[in-house]
Amino acid sequence: MDYFEYRDSALWCEGVAMERIAREFGTPVYVYSARTFVEHYERIATAFAKLQPLICYSIKSCPNTHLCKLLARKGAGFDVVSGGELFRARRAGGDPAKIVFAGVGKSEAEIRAALRCGIGLLNVESEAEMDQLVRIAAEESVSARAALRINPDVDPVTHRHTTTGTRETKFGVDVARARRFFERFGRTKEVSLCGLHLHIGSPVNRVDPYVAAIQRALELIDELTRAGFAIDTLDIGGGFSAHYRGTEAPDAAAYAAAIVPLLRERGLRIILEPGRSIAANAGVLLTRVEYVKPANARRFVIVDAGMNDLIRPVLYDAYHFIWPVRPGEGFVPGARGDAIDAPGLVETDVVGPVCETGDFFARKRRLPPVERGELLAVFTAGAYGMSMSSQYNSRPRAAEVLVEGDAARLIRRRETYDDLVEAEHV
Amino acid sequence: MDYFEYRDSALWCEGVAMERIAREFGTPVYVYSARTFVEHYERIATAFAKLQPLICYSIKSCPNTHLCKLLARKGAGFDVVSGGELFRARRAGGDPAKIVFAGVGKSEAEIRAALRCGIGLLNVESEAEMDQLVRIAAEESVSARAALRINPDVDPVTHRHTTTGTRETKFGVDVARARRFFERFGRTKEVSLCGLHLHIGSPVNRVDPYVAAIQRALELIDELTRAGFAIDTLDIGGGFSAHYRGTEAPDAAAYAAAIVPLLRERGLRIILEPGRSIAANAGVLLTRVEYVKPANARRFVIVDAGMNDLIRPVLYDAYHFIWPVRPGEGFVPGARGDAIDAPGLVETDVVGPVCETGDFFARKRRLPPVERGELLAVFTAGAYGMSMSSQYNSRPRAAEVLVEGDAARLIRRRETYDDLVEAEHV
Repeated sequence: MDYFEYRDSALWCEGVAMERIAREFGTPVYVYSARTFVEHYERIATAFAKLQPLICYSIKSCPNTHLCKLLARKGAGFDVVSGGELFRARRAGGDPAKIVFAGVGKSEAEIRAALRCGIGLLNVESEAEMDQLVRIAAEESVSARAALRINPDVDPVTHRHTTTGTRETKFGVDVARARRFFERFGRTKEVSLCGLHLHIGSPVNRVDPYVAAIQRALELIDELTRAGFAIDTLDIGGGFSAHYRGTEAPDAAAYAAAIVPLLRERGLRIILEPGRSIAANAGVLLTRVEYVKPANARRFVIVDAGMNDLIRPVLYDAYHFIWPVRPGEGFVPGARGDAIDAPGLVETDVVGPVCETGDFFARKRRLPPVERGELLAVFTAGAYGMSMSSQYNSRPRAAEVLVEGDAARLIRRRETYDDLVEAEHV
Repeated sequence: MDYFEYRDSALWCEGVAMERIAREFGTPVYVYSARTFVEHYERIATAFAKLQPLICYSIKSCPNTHLCKLLARKGAGFDVVSGGELFRARRAGGDPAKIVFAGVGKSEAEIRAALRCGIGLLNVESEAEMDQLVRIAAEESVSARAALRINPDVDPVTHRHTTTGTRETKFGVDVARARRFFERFGRTKEVSLCGLHLHIGSPVNRVDPYVAAIQRALELIDELTRAGFAIDTLDIGGGFSAHYRGTEAPDAAAYAAAIVPLLRERGLRIILEPGRSIAANAGVLLTRVEYVKPANARRFVIVDAGMNDLIRPVLYDAYHFIWPVRPGEGFVPGARGDAIDAPGLVETDVVGPVCETGDFFARKRRLPPVERGELLAVFTAGAYGMSMSSQYNSRPRAAEVLVEGDAARLIRRRETYDDLVEAEHV
């Protein structure tokens, strides 16, 4: 679901023509639909309402503070994985009590900052980290709430780089070790070890891995409760998917239909950490064609965005639907994804200007004819797009524009050459 | 070859202990040895001296202006692939006449900036780009020199993401098309099409792909000369390798021994574009252990550097030798690479704090015992380390420190949380 649509033969974001955005703000530019972003959040809130969950937006997916503010205003919490994300959540007006902090390598400074602001929950990933947390909480004379991240050893059926809940990853601890962890830390007075945390991976296009993971967590909670530990919180993590190829992602209601019945009568405080499912379809990377280059049996369309702007295709073999902003008669897409076919489509590689063969957005994709100067939209780019961008090849990072109805405003300015070297003035 | 060595049981960079650098500048930090950097440049200059080549340092490998200045002072030229790199080369004091500009997606603004500063050579990748170049040169009333990038269709036997000279990539044109390119543009008066450009990939650990590529280029030059075109320049590109695992890279003399005889009597102006072979072994990423986490049959060592600091392991399956800065008795390495063995080594995954399974530096590597707070050195990180770094997970980018003899100075300050959002003040 999103509010990017073809109207009068050209692509619009809500009430603003993408061509106008390119004219006013230049390319490459990330364009976000506020309505899409907020509605995805609200759909999750509605679908899971019976659990009265705390929904913590996963900042790493798309960290712009102006976007975070939209959710803070709706009462969302935030899932942060670093001191920098904690800083962002607070700048966005996030209530510290609604912030959860995950991550395998929290530094002492990060833990201290989290405790000082009164963070709601720390998701702890190892015994060594818990030792630190207990020590720092004592030093700071604050009480902290922590959940233990467990690996339910469930395969989320996603990319190997983003599979996080199986037994072999760096994250969490397995179930047997969780029992020993509670024996050791479950009665510590400085830190209330009050919950479990799960995160199985992302994107997860099925509901059954969640069901399996939550069932294992519940069994463990029962066992721990019988052993006298007070578990009141279950953070089921994130990983809900988005529409990349068409409508392949289960919607919020489908995830909820499988998950809510498992948790409804449990009396637990439930935390969700959606990121991709809120941000991905809310963002499009808008780019301009620099050159069209025929080559043997294919055609290279060279655009002004590069792998430094969007690394997902080369890093995760990720598919992004790409289509001209003004595709010409007969080429306006009814739906998105690989299924589109029309006479006149040409097999195309869409590539960037970076000096690497890995700098591509699509390979052997059938696209309409395009010319130098035309605009292309790279869809479903809101999550893990700008957040992973770099200045590789000394390319200033793209601008970000937020559309709300008929208004488009800059929420991150395009970097300049001076920005590239600013930190080198030493 | 480099000036990082174990002395008194700990790692030093030239005359500075790595422990001192961590203490003064914090971690994670990129540490560069000026002497290593400059000597690699000088070795190439010496090895190829008979050709009197223009050696253009490939800025994309490691773009810090303070490093570029070291080479500009030695008379080096620069290979740039964007307007941002051109900006860096000029800030470093690079002579515009010694700058070459490659890349498949040069924008109009970039071409204009290059022409206005009197750039030495533009390496052109397509007919469409040449059309632009001719038009802009006419508008600017300047004369320009250009070389055509050709794909010799040679396999450099390297990673697929960095293979650039085979027939199927976005780069350059094949030999048959090059002939037509010269027929069309070879007598254009605004732009003197005076050369050929090759770049087969990187890192290339053998000399024979260069020999094959250069032979094909020379055959084409002969043919074009017979047809009346005035070719005076051959840019043989870069891709020379570095020591990642041990001493696997041919040295400059070995590349030269194969290449110089092919070119010596040709009267061509030869351009080389080394980047990795100068920068890679000149840099170490210094990082501190946050946590040690045993897990089933392995051990995770979680460090304070992440994939946002060094993406090569997950992006290219790249190997980086990693070793403690103070490894303890019996573990001081004689040489680097996988071959090191000693009783007491433990199978280890070295991973970062980023919330992704792809955030790792080494997997199943046999390392000495290490403890929280210890320093690890990630070797051969000078090239495509900092240059590809990002702020993913809202992590401020690392500092860069340059060591010259007994002195260590900051050449890029560590970013702050404010830096993360500075461009969002709009």
